[in-house]
Amino acid sequence: MELQRYFEGFNDRDWEPEVEPADGPLRLAIVGLGGYARDRALPAIERTARCETTVAVSGSPEKVETVASRFDVDRTLDYEAFHAGEAADAYDAVYVSTPPAHHLAAAETAAEHGKHVLCEKPMDVNTERAERMVEVCDDAGVALMVAYRLHAEPAYRRLRELIGDGFIGDPVQVHGAFSLDLLGRTEVSAADVWRIDPEVAGGGALMDLGIYPLNTARFLLDADPVAVQATTAAPDEAFDGVDEHVAFQVSFPDDAVGSFSASFNAHRDSQLKVVGTEGRVTVDSAFGGLVDREVVVERGEMHAAFTGPYVDEIEEQFEYFGTRVLHGEPIEPDGVHGLVDIAVADAVYESAATGGRVGLDG
Amino acid sequence: MELQRYFEGFNDRDWEPEVEPADGPLRLAIVGLGGYARDRALPAIERTARCETTVAVSGSPEKVETVASRFDVDRTLDYEAFHAGEAADAYDAVYVSTPPAHHLAAAETAAEHGKHVLCEKPMDVNTERAERMVEVCDDAGVALMVAYRLHAEPAYRRLRELIGDGFIGDPVQVHGAFSLDLLGRTEVSAADVWRIDPEVAGGGALMDLGIYPLNTARFLLDADPVAVQATTAAPDEAFDGVDEHVAFQVSFPDDAVGSFSASFNAHRDSQLKVVGTEGRVTVDSAFGGLVDREVVVERGEMHAAFTGPYVDEIEEQFEYFGTRVLHGEPIEPDGVHGLVDIAVADAVYESAATGGRVGLDG
Repeated sequence: MELQRYFEGFNDRDWEPEVEPADGPLRLAIVGLGGYARDRALPAIERTARCETTVAVSGSPEKVETVASRFDVDRTLDYEAFHAGEAADAYDAVYVSTPPAHHLAAAETAAEHGKHVLCEKPMDVNTERAERMVEVCDDAGVALMVAYRLHAEPAYRRLRELIGDGFIGDPVQVHGAFSLDLLGRTEVSAADVWRIDPEVAGGGALMDLGIYPLNTARFLLDADPVAVQATTAAPDEAFDGVDEHVAFQVSFPDDAVGSFSASFNAHRDSQLKVVGTEGRVTVDSAFGGLVDREVVVERGEMHAAFTGPYVDEIEEQFEYFGTRVLHGEPIEPDGVHGLVDIAVADAVYESAATGGRVGLDG
Repeated sequence: MELQRYFEGFNDRDWEPEVEPADGPLRLAIVGLGGYARDRALPAIERTARCETTVAVSGSPEKVETVASRFDVDRTLDYEAFHAGEAADAYDAVYVSTPPAHHLAAAETAAEHGKHVLCEKPMDVNTERAERMVEVCDDAGVALMVAYRLHAEPAYRRLRELIGDGFIGDPVQVHGAFSLDLLGRTEVSAADVWRIDPEVAGGGALMDLGIYPLNTARFLLDADPVAVQATTAAPDEAFDGVDEHVAFQVSFPDDAVGSFSASFNAHRDSQLKVVGTEGRVTVDSAFGGLVDREVVVERGEMHAAFTGPYVDEIEEQFEYFGTRVLHGEPIEPDGVHGLVDIAVADAVYESAATGGRVGLDG
């Protein structure tokens, strides 16, 4: 196998169609204007060819004003107006970037008005609500994509091809870790408080961070977990009621095991490694987003490091979403894919509580 | 805290006494002449100031001949002669480098003749036998050291000081992985067959490889496990009856969790990482032995890489052992320390079989 061919076109958009969509760009209503939406998503959407933000929705007049002053949106709405269907003619799809507990409601409103949905991860706070989201989108005949943006990130797309072709043999051990210091050494900032409210976030470090190594391993291995063992801890009282730290071991079919961890109260850590019978790939920083990824591929005596030109994975994700919707083509990762992570999260918390291995359908 | 001071004297032997021992060098009988003993241990002993090999014991006339031709030993013995106490005047201590199931017998003979013991890891194949080893050495008043050579390795000694001083805050996540291709892509070589015989090795990848990240984490954190969750697999029939792959999650007191893995049938992998509330340390290659270690220490915005001049950790271990015995000083890691790894290994296999979290005394 020629390693080179995977990386020659490092940033190729292999999902790019041969012809431009007849219509477009896809007009988005962005629902929820938190820091990530304002500082990362909106600028990324602005750089795409096939998406544009026409409507901005928030409960905060300040956030609406900030966004309206910085971006060329046609309409701004509060939640009441959005859910009432106001300005529904002004957008074709909804990008849901609220805290998780509000995802379902936004998707329901979108579906009700026949709008496609791109929903931030995790889908919602529990399986029941996530299943309902799949159902309403299915019933309405609208597309539902879950915003696992690393599926659109070139380094991971190249690695997925390489692993799928057997370049590192059969994957056997995966290690993935994602941690950061949410406390910022003082108190949790007001903007991040929802991340440690179990009612709103559905959990703690697992739901916000641990889901990255989990979902990325699923993407790279093209496999879904069959069992989980896990431990959680919250020694700092600031994290009462959620997992400040989580370590979880995920069994995949064919005997690969993922050893994953995430922390809300730790030095930054963002690494992923897949060890196969014939080789090894490592990615550092694996989930960071704003830094270049160093990809190292090893097989036999060979050790090769690859870095592509910097690519904004968020822009890639929106370009992909817009393109697929405009062409009416299937979209991945879809809601059914996202449901698996919610089921794994449920199993992680169950295993942490009981100590037992929790089986999954796989 | 000044990071620099930990690494200025990178290879300092902090255990080195101010005065030379009155006697010496310590005369060793090496029991078991496998590849590691011949190619790594015997040359390392030859380079020490305070140990020398005077007696070599093996059941194989070929191995005895090879060793006698390459090293300056006074006597060679077969096992029968060794256990009968022949040439007991010619050595002061016994270095046990047989496969694990024969460790206890060698230690018993040593103790019987009042000889100190340096025993390869793991101590033996189960807790009962390991406890018996501690007992016979205690009763005979001889020292018992378990050959966890990384305790004598300068990089780890520096990191242990640094972590103990709180340089990375409270450790919260540890990742450690050790894998290699024992099959060598064909069949297991005759010299390595014992490693996949559960009666002789006490297990598979865990006992031979997984014990490294486990024990090194214990050393760095200065803490012992309180619970274990684990999964094992042996998809390749060559590994019937032992763990070809193992992934195990180890809870330490104060909520640190180790996510460890080991494989007998995988690309080489040898990494260790400790993530704390304030910083992170990584070691690569962590358990390799023949290559330089790259130590990376991070805290806040600082990222610093340290490499010391190459040091043979095996030579360090023997120099330490000889020095401490000649001075009559306490020796670490001792048998009681080694017992903990055997107890953890028992718990790993129990958890893998039952799926449940297995508690330990800690």
